[in-house]
Amino acid sequence: MGKRVAVVLAGCGVFDGSEIHEASAVLVHLSRGGAEVKIFAPNIEQRDVVNHLKGSPAEEKRNVLVESARLARGNIQDLAELKASEFDAVIFPGGFGVAKNLCSWAVDGKNCTVNEHVSSTLQAFHSAKKPIGLCCISPVLAAKVFPGCEVTVGQDKNVDGRFPDAETASAIAELGCKHICKNVNESHVDKANKIVTTCAFMCKAPLHEIFDGIGTMVQEVLKLV
Amino acid sequence: MGKRVAVVLAGCGVFDGSEIHEASAVLVHLSRGGAEVKIFAPNIEQRDVVNHLKGSPAEEKRNVLVESARLARGNIQDLAELKASEFDAVIFPGGFGVAKNLCSWAVDGKNCTVNEHVSSTLQAFHSAKKPIGLCCISPVLAAKVFPGCEVTVGQDKNVDGRFPDAETASAIAELGCKHICKNVNESHVDKANKIVTTCAFMCKAPLHEIFDGIGTMVQEVLKLV
Repeated sequence: MGKRVAVVLAGCGVFDGSEIHEASAVLVHLSRGGAEVKIFAPNIEQRDVVNHLKGSPAEEKRNVLVESARLARGNIQDLAELKASEFDAVIFPGGFGVAKNLCSWAVDGKNCTVNEHVSSTLQAFHSAKKPIGLCCISPVLAAKVFPGCEVTVGQDKNVDGRFPDAETASAIAELGCKHICKNVNESHVDKANKIVTTCAFMCKAPLHEIFDGIGTMVQEVLKLV
Repeated sequence: MGKRVAVVLAGCGVFDGSEIHEASAVLVHLSRGGAEVKIFAPNIEQRDVVNHLKGSPAEEKRNVLVESARLARGNIQDLAELKASEFDAVIFPGGFGVAKNLCSWAVDGKNCTVNEHVSSTLQAFHSAKKPIGLCCISPVLAAKVFPGCEVTVGQDKNVDGRFPDAETASAIAELGCKHICKNVNESHVDKANKIVTTCAFMCKAPLHEIFDGIGTMVQEVLKLV
């Protein structure tokens, strides 16, 4: 039997949901690693709906679970039903939806609140010493829930113009966590907390480099199981 | 300068748009191949909107270009603006949206009509002897527009229960085209027409095998440029 991994989504689309290519990359690498995957998302209304063509808010309501089901090809469950005891690891792809729907980082920064089911899921895996993988902006979830942990969101300076959101690293530090500078093709493993992070689209890089970087995160998560 | 490839989308989600993982795989493999990619979709209303959680139609209207922009991270253009002269190749990922929005295959089968901009795009690349890549159900576009061409949609029998839509192969034959049986990890190259096809999600296979099969299609397309 393969390692059992839960993947938690936040919608479907970089500006109001899960970043699609990050979520797909996570699932491709888990498939290659022989993992048994189940996909979850909170059954809540999205904070907003963004017209991705115009980059502006749309006058619509959409549900995080229903939209995440697009990425899951319909094979998805309400995050409230996730039992950490049935899994060996959990992975959160990135995208603004993480900062809008899974927590309020997009609005409140380091004073954000975390969705109750997201928080309880993270706590349950952490206390059972099961690995947690996160990429892009998702590491802020770990930084908020586990003060003192180590995560990467890429570089803490806008090196070569590739890290336009480098100030996120300072916010991680303000939460009492340690930001570790890593490139897009690398992950950081916080061994004490079994938290594995990679910057993904926090770096302006060709898509295949982001794909490969996510691969290192998934592989480290599976190794830690 | 890299090879210039246009990718044409049909929405965002397997049941009413482009199959997300196929579209992402195409873009990852093109990135790895060093291609310069631009993404297009028709600016039309979707034939329907499917609630992917329930698998049933939703009482909503969505626009193919606006939803495709989710996969393109906002970097997308109206298909009406695509000039074949500016590209070396074109690729159509699959998903039911191809059979609903790019043509009427889902409703009309072999009597389907093809969206005018999709049809003119295919004709323009074909007459310029530029390669066309298609996967999953998208090969029906080529079969309809180029009678006599060779394509694969996988196997013509439901081998090991892995090809539940095997009858699509017969429909290809009824259109006067030659169906070539191929496995999920293979592509078929119609050298005369420069059409490259792979079955992708027409086969019930682990996601990484579908990803790799799409990789062979993308690589053959780039080789033909």
